[in-house]
Amino acid sequence: MTTLAIVGATGAVGSVMIDIIDARESVPWSEIRLIASPRSAGKRLRVRGEEIEVVALSPEAFDGVDIAMFDVPDAVSAEWAPVAVSRGAVAVDNSGAFRMDPDVPLVVPEVNADQAHERPKGIVSNPNCTTLSMMAALGALHRAFGLRELVVASYQAASGAGQEGIDRLQAELAAVAGKGVGYRRGDVAEAIASAGLPPESPFNAPLALNVVPFAGSPKEAGWTSEELKVRNESRKILGLPELKVSATCVRVPVVTTHSLSVHATFENEVDVATAHQVFAAQPSIVLVDEPEAKRFPTPADVVGEDPTYVGRVRQALDFPNTLDFFVCGDNLRKGAALNTYEIAEELVRR
Amino acid sequence: MTTLAIVGATGAVGSVMIDIIDARESVPWSEIRLIASPRSAGKRLRVRGEEIEVVALSPEAFDGVDIAMFDVPDAVSAEWAPVAVSRGAVAVDNSGAFRMDPDVPLVVPEVNADQAHERPKGIVSNPNCTTLSMMAALGALHRAFGLRELVVASYQAASGAGQEGIDRLQAELAAVAGKGVGYRRGDVAEAIASAGLPPESPFNAPLALNVVPFAGSPKEAGWTSEELKVRNESRKILGLPELKVSATCVRVPVVTTHSLSVHATFENEVDVATAHQVFAAQPSIVLVDEPEAKRFPTPADVVGEDPTYVGRVRQALDFPNTLDFFVCGDNLRKGAALNTYEIAEELVRR
Repeated sequence: MTTLAIVGATGAVGSVMIDIIDARESVPWSEIRLIASPRSAGKRLRVRGEEIEVVALSPEAFDGVDIAMFDVPDAVSAEWAPVAVSRGAVAVDNSGAFRMDPDVPLVVPEVNADQAHERPKGIVSNPNCTTLSMMAALGALHRAFGLRELVVASYQAASGAGQEGIDRLQAELAAVAGKGVGYRRGDVAEAIASAGLPPESPFNAPLALNVVPFAGSPKEAGWTSEELKVRNESRKILGLPELKVSATCVRVPVVTTHSLSVHATFENEVDVATAHQVFAAQPSIVLVDEPEAKRFPTPADVVGEDPTYVGRVRQALDFPNTLDFFVCGDNLRKGAALNTYEIAEELVRR
Repeated sequence: MTTLAIVGATGAVGSVMIDIIDARESVPWSEIRLIASPRSAGKRLRVRGEEIEVVALSPEAFDGVDIAMFDVPDAVSAEWAPVAVSRGAVAVDNSGAFRMDPDVPLVVPEVNADQAHERPKGIVSNPNCTTLSMMAALGALHRAFGLRELVVASYQAASGAGQEGIDRLQAELAAVAGKGVGYRRGDVAEAIASAGLPPESPFNAPLALNVVPFAGSPKEAGWTSEELKVRNESRKILGLPELKVSATCVRVPVVTTHSLSVHATFENEVDVATAHQVFAAQPSIVLVDEPEAKRFPTPADVVGEDPTYVGRVRQALDFPNTLDFFVCGDNLRKGAALNTYEIAEELVRR
């Protein structure tokens, strides 16, 4: 008798959590409880053939809950995950509220599943979607070769900024398509304004027919929150507090699925054939790497898929013990809902 | 009395060459000759208010020409640049035919103008557009700090694949806009096919609502021609045959203007304030770097502009003597027509 709660059940990631639960052959839950803000309470959602009424977030909503998955804003998690714990649940949280708390493990099951079981605060954190999109691949390579340095540039999808981000990108695309813009400074912004879209955008610049080298919020010395998360979370998940990391996070006009160009330097010698074997041996990775046939992963081929796709694996020509590669992962699935659910499965497995 | 010829005058880059010549306050040319393939011969184009008839490519077309700028396919340059030289012209070539020839200088005027005057074959090469997009910035930093290592990820525009690339992107955008695609594997490709676009694409994958980690042709050990050009041309332009370079070249759904995320390691200590001064002192660079105000360069703000735009300058947190930054440059202007014309101006200046 195990009860799972989804907190934020009516949100974008919550919906994907329900999709994932629906698609599982079997689930270990005797009850699934859907929790959301008061304005979503009373909605009825179908989960594994059963209609479930969404209940409002309250302390009592967690009574009898064993595992509570949270996908809500940082401040809501900060307040309510401890409440869930005080009512006897383990909280698996996909906000940024607890990720860097030394008493909260940050877990990617195929990398550091054991850590999910050492949780002094009763909370397990799910990493940021950008970090997660490359972590299955990096974890596998680290076990094989010993990771030392990481230089990363991202190609991040609009859905990383939530439903608002997706809606903005689709509206901008409709505004620019067929308008013959992209040829002179500012014509994309003019087409977007002419279509009546508000100047405020979650991306701080046009995203259609553009790329935006800024994701998250500004932090110290010119770095963004997103770039620091990639550094700090990679170090914590891999247990490498001295890992050298430089990340540049860039938004691209893709709906869902983050991609990363990764330049990774290892303690030991590397070669492409061995790296291919390492990737092929990891069930959560799909290797698509046939450059002669022009086969490589792209986000449009990965969206909606659970695995991390890896390709363009090259041995660096000038840097010893270094691989360059390209990775694509659905930021709403492995990057959010799927990994959170896999942590819940890991918790109930023991 | 100096005669300039434009070979490939009716192409995409040739048109930009004419725009640049039109916009110059004064030009040192007593005659401008327009040369193209026989099927374009007889067309009349207006240059600085004068109508000029395009003549067909022939040995005689170069008689009396002092400087001939070429923007034609590699094989055409390989055959015809030496013909122009044999008729007394200096050839400034924007193909890949001669770039790595040790007897042909590869010139970016603000970096290595002197080399334009040592040309044993009478030919000066213009670099590849991806390399060029970052070279003004790298040249300035190299003079200040001594460049040693370069890790680069590109965000390359469709126009890098010529007019065919631009047309494909615009047609794909029209096919996917308002269709509610980008949410599941393959739906973008289906929308493109449904719109009647041929499956063959210059990008080997959908480019609308996607990014494509492959540009150029497959070369040894999984590298692409484009990635090797970034490495080899950077070394040659900067005069650093031992420069360590790893590049990953990725196409993005932008019409024109290449962007690059650059991780550059130097011999000497670096800091952001000094780097800002170095960029500010270079007339061909515009610095847009106010992260707190969310001001940074994006391709939509740079297309059609001559300067290289630089922003997101950060001192690497974990790598000594290293800067991370983002750069945008119009690949048809500084990346092609403008730099070629600036080489021609440099040649006539002495």
